[in-house]
Amino acid sequence: MKAPKQLLDFLLKGKHFLIATHVNPEGDAIGSSLALSIALESLGKETFVYCKDAVPEFYKFLPKYKKVSASLPDSKHFPPLILVDCNNTDRAGLEKTTLMPAAIIDHHEPGKDLCDAKWIDPKASAAGILVYHVIKDLGVGITKAIATNLYTAIAVDTGIFRHNNTNSEAMRIASELIAAGADPYMIAENLYETWSENRFKLLLKVLATTEIHNSIAITKVTLDMFEETGSNAADTENFINFTQMMESIKVSALFREVGKNLFKVSLRSKKETVNVAKIAEMFGGGGHKQAAGYKVSSGFNTAKQELLNILCSQ
Amino acid sequence: MKAPKQLLDFLLKGKHFLIATHVNPEGDAIGSSLALSIALESLGKETFVYCKDAVPEFYKFLPKYKKVSASLPDSKHFPPLILVDCNNTDRAGLEKTTLMPAAIIDHHEPGKDLCDAKWIDPKASAAGILVYHVIKDLGVGITKAIATNLYTAIAVDTGIFRHNNTNSEAMRIASELIAAGADPYMIAENLYETWSENRFKLLLKVLATTEIHNSIAITKVTLDMFEETGSNAADTENFINFTQMMESIKVSALFREVGKNLFKVSLRSKKETVNVAKIAEMFGGGGHKQAAGYKVSSGFNTAKQELLNILCSQ
Repeated sequence: MKAPKQLLDFLLKGKHFLIATHVNPEGDAIGSSLALSIALESLGKETFVYCKDAVPEFYKFLPKYKKVSASLPDSKHFPPLILVDCNNTDRAGLEKTTLMPAAIIDHHEPGKDLCDAKWIDPKASAAGILVYHVIKDLGVGITKAIATNLYTAIAVDTGIFRHNNTNSEAMRIASELIAAGADPYMIAENLYETWSENRFKLLLKVLATTEIHNSIAITKVTLDMFEETGSNAADTENFINFTQMMESIKVSALFREVGKNLFKVSLRSKKETVNVAKIAEMFGGGGHKQAAGYKVSSGFNTAKQELLNILCSQ
Repeated sequence: MKAPKQLLDFLLKGKHFLIATHVNPEGDAIGSSLALSIALESLGKETFVYCKDAVPEFYKFLPKYKKVSASLPDSKHFPPLILVDCNNTDRAGLEKTTLMPAAIIDHHEPGKDLCDAKWIDPKASAAGILVYHVIKDLGVGITKAIATNLYTAIAVDTGIFRHNNTNSEAMRIASELIAAGADPYMIAENLYETWSENRFKLLLKVLATTEIHNSIAITKVTLDMFEETGSNAADTENFINFTQMMESIKVSALFREVGKNLFKVSLRSKKETVNVAKIAEMFGGGGHKQAAGYKVSSGFNTAKQELLNILCSQ
């Protein structure tokens, strides 16, 4: 893989950049943006890294994470905008500004905002893979800080090399990043062993609600559970994957209460079983084949039965 | 890394081999043994693969797993013995035979049984790393069957690239194995998403017993729980790691009832916190710094309090 010349020329020519990534940032968004920022600054350029939402607590091991700002620079004239791990300004929470991307480095399907200096490759496991190549092609050496940010980016988007976007290229780059100073154990520990006790208590309550119908696992989280355990909706991330550990389970659904008779439903399926995006669409939602979601206005039992009826008729 | 010449010569010269690995085999034991067997057979040699214990159900996706036999060949004259992922005959359950190793490929600390044709490197992440180099140095191409076995070997011993033995070399080899046909997603799914529903029900019961004292998480599994859920002791593998997800937890202990007032206690600690091998030794047990265990003859509450007293005085 090689970064497009137009993108490299754009980065080499500029002096100041505004790097922005998507709202609700995860490791790929933050790690890729910071790695690019560190690399450009090592070339004597100035960068401002923007993310509308704050860096989640457990990503605060990332070198230079304080560089990420939740407010835009105080200026009338913004430097050229580089979108990282997203390809339209809405996704970066910039829809209320007049900003348009001058460059894009992303691995999601292209949307409405395009520009000349771009590299959008939906086949890349992570934006971090593309940023790695950009940095190498710019002739910048991979420092420990860059390596830690990029390794985290790739590790998060591949579920630490477990998801079906894990490939030989991602592994080869990970190998080089470890050689350059990334600590795979420290990173994994920060990503997966930093739960609060409240979050763990919430997990126990949620798993205790597990119902299995045919090959479908249903779990539920209620507003009361959040209150009883001192936790919140963000703490439910990954909860849906626990029931997927069972070999017999083809689809997992997590019903999260968001109001009276109002639930957000997350769906997961295993490779080559049910396309949950299609199921979610039937309820007005959407997503990917293996991960999708929708909202439903009804009591839990009714909502559950509606979903089971559809899944069992597949 | 390069395999020792004496080992390569031994493998090249021989026509028949008995490959044996350790009792209670995991992915590294089985995957490394099978990869070596496939490679040697591709050179026109005959191999017999022995493991005293049967291949666990969830490793039955490994190519050629049926080659692993739980009984020795029916012969008065055994072919030369190669120990893989262990370095003494006791560990392979061969202590009652007159067999002595003619070759050893292992990454555990060397013990009593040595021989000339050996490669014992405790720094290797997995025996699979050494077998990979042996196969390459023998001039055998990495087929999909070899790649799947070796990738599984490395993935299991590194906790799929999460443990502190994950390094640049392991990643580079994993990258090459994927390019040769290993499917990282299929392997991860087989390793981590093949729980029985009974095992999941047992997990829920065990996690419901979680007690947190200072930075110590205690969980318990009783004989009644096995009966109620139709599960057994083997199903508790990895259970102790769940409480380690909490950032505040330094030590996790799982008390498994094995008889009246008799418990097996497993201990885990995080890097650079408590040395649990020393704690286990105080109770007549042993293990590694981060993973150890012991047996105790007393009621649960007494046993728990004794452990807490010692841990809290550390």
